[in-house]
Amino acid sequence: MEPPRNGVKAMDVYYNPVRAIWGPGSFAKLEEVLESLSSKRIALFCGSRSFKESGCEEKLLPLISRYKIVRFDRIPSHPDISDVLEIHRQAKNYRFDTFIAIGGGSVLDMAKAIKAASSLDLNSEEDLRKIIGTSDFQPGHEAIVAIPTTSGSGSELTKWATVWDKDNQKKYSIDHPALYPDFALVDPSLTYSLTLRTSVTSGLDALCHAVEAYWAKESNECSRAFSLTGASRILVGLEQLFHQELKEEARNNLSLGSLNAGYAFSHTRTTACHAMAYPLTLRYGIEHGIAVTMTLASILLYNLPYLNDQKALFAALKIDSPNDLQERVNSICSRAGIKTKLRDYGVNKEELAAIAAECFTKGRMDNNPYLLTVEEVNHILHHIY
Amino acid sequence: MEPPRNGVKAMDVYYNPVRAIWGPGSFAKLEEVLESLSSKRIALFCGSRSFKESGCEEKLLPLISRYKIVRFDRIPSHPDISDVLEIHRQAKNYRFDTFIAIGGGSVLDMAKAIKAASSLDLNSEEDLRKIIGTSDFQPGHEAIVAIPTTSGSGSELTKWATVWDKDNQKKYSIDHPALYPDFALVDPSLTYSLTLRTSVTSGLDALCHAVEAYWAKESNECSRAFSLTGASRILVGLEQLFHQELKEEARNNLSLGSLNAGYAFSHTRTTACHAMAYPLTLRYGIEHGIAVTMTLASILLYNLPYLNDQKALFAALKIDSPNDLQERVNSICSRAGIKTKLRDYGVNKEELAAIAAECFTKGRMDNNPYLLTVEEVNHILHHIY
Repeated sequence: MEPPRNGVKAMDVYYNPVRAIWGPGSFAKLEEVLESLSSKRIALFCGSRSFKESGCEEKLLPLISRYKIVRFDRIPSHPDISDVLEIHRQAKNYRFDTFIAIGGGSVLDMAKAIKAASSLDLNSEEDLRKIIGTSDFQPGHEAIVAIPTTSGSGSELTKWATVWDKDNQKKYSIDHPALYPDFALVDPSLTYSLTLRTSVTSGLDALCHAVEAYWAKESNECSRAFSLTGASRILVGLEQLFHQELKEEARNNLSLGSLNAGYAFSHTRTTACHAMAYPLTLRYGIEHGIAVTMTLASILLYNLPYLNDQKALFAALKIDSPNDLQERVNSICSRAGIKTKLRDYGVNKEELAAIAAECFTKGRMDNNPYLLTVEEVNHILHHIY
Repeated sequence: MEPPRNGVKAMDVYYNPVRAIWGPGSFAKLEEVLESLSSKRIALFCGSRSFKESGCEEKLLPLISRYKIVRFDRIPSHPDISDVLEIHRQAKNYRFDTFIAIGGGSVLDMAKAIKAASSLDLNSEEDLRKIIGTSDFQPGHEAIVAIPTTSGSGSELTKWATVWDKDNQKKYSIDHPALYPDFALVDPSLTYSLTLRTSVTSGLDALCHAVEAYWAKESNECSRAFSLTGASRILVGLEQLFHQELKEEARNNLSLGSLNAGYAFSHTRTTACHAMAYPLTLRYGIEHGIAVTMTLASILLYNLPYLNDQKALFAALKIDSPNDLQERVNSICSRAGIKTKLRDYGVNKEELAAIAAECFTKGRMDNNPYLLTVEEVNHILHHIY
């Protein structure tokens, strides 16, 4: 790919049909949203812990009794293909018209995965793998109301869902235009009770969405504006987390920053950092937000000649070099007690070559403006070892 | 309204469902777009002159014969309520499934107005006025493909249409969520044949959209990012118009800038500059793009305390004060032979008080962060006299 001229590409497309409602207290709009959707038969997807701790359960009680909502409340983190199949089986008899998903990315993705397959009759994991392999989904007509309780995944603005296949050590992306949520209710007050660690790791994921979207092949004028606003606000929020008196403001900034990052990468998708993170999560259970950030500064270095406007990106990140970015990220992680080296996660140096070979997820690695070789990926892995 | 804190409002909403396809040559995507819409019965709205001069007619010939497109090709500039009624009468027998609108804002707005009333049976101008007064539209299901041939109105991204009522000296806005176009095909090469004057006046309209959206009451993080990118690119484009060797690049910048401005003000709507422009156009025929820009610097001065980030806006406009903006705009207009004072358009000083009283268009003037009094509006009119 040629380094782009300033913002004028041959052809650009932008589209995002999600109705985003953002702000502390916006959760209270849920009833109005359900009315506007004429919702009658509602499924509620939530994580068992986050649902209580975010305060959503209490706030939802009056609605739950009015609407006779069916609850799927044990959505695990990093949902496996077996989890999707299980909930698909339970849900398919209800003929829901609306899915409310309250939780982190895993919960939101589960609601989307169930919608993707809702008019299918899946009897085995193999059935589901086959459908994912052929992208032959037949999404139902359920409206999705996505209510994130972390500021990271951006799933409330995208048309895809990540599903893991632990048996086969794979990560799938279910991707369909019908999977854009109808509404995103983004209420930062739902994130006030998060632990510092979760706020940091989800914020780092959002940071990577913003920065990777900036240099992604499909990046354009619209997505880049979102990238810069998002990246800048997320870094401000991450720094503010360490000041007791700014805890709420920090999370407001992370929430709004993540929303902007979501608008950016919902158009561009992610790149090399995400591609390299998947095997790290699959093999060693390294949290997604940490795994994606480990390589961010290294990939920035490779992508420098391809940036649309290096000055603008560096200004948004308040850095003068990729090394500055590494230091900012390391400092945030170390203050949150998060290790940033592969050796901290039980990785053996001998395994790096094998990991490198697994980093070439289609649609992610080849979405990086500079096409990394296996040797270069190996080199980066050694660098972050 | 309180001056806003840095970007954190109690509640923000962002939504724009238009599929925007931008780029020199993107007009060629029209056939693909019609296929994706499964279009069968198509109406083509266009202006008699712009349709030829933009090169669209020639490019469309093969499509027109294949699809048997019905053409409404005499859409006038500033369409009156009588024009809408006339085309409504002609169109209602066809049961179209798709409207292609190729032209400036007037043509795009006409297609939207016809869709707004397409399932109604209107027999008189009074019928139409009544519907507009009560906002009791019943839009049809026609898909709209909006193809602007100027870079100014932003109509390809909004859910409203401006209709004039010359008999009653009024300007109406038909406003309905079903009026968002399905596709915006924004091809700057369609604007290469515009006169310098039209490029300037439509660019100035887009500039006002970007800047007014920045300070509008409903401004938010998303819309402001679009405002800044848009304003900056539009001013670059306007300056480039005066350099022969940059004529195409100028229009690429104006096109992309106008697209960004459209994303911004499709959310916020416009403010005092637009409110003050309507009587100037109705009474004296001052072109819309000129009328809105006449007051831009004056209104900026009143709005300074309400700007979310004055430094960011000034940087995008490359100015240090409202006066600088006045000078930049005046210099552009004077180089294009455009007069910028009311006295140049046959306005008598004695009429200013009467004009001032007509400047308070609901939804526009009260969308300005600082609420101007009639005296202040009168003062501004004297200032630009």
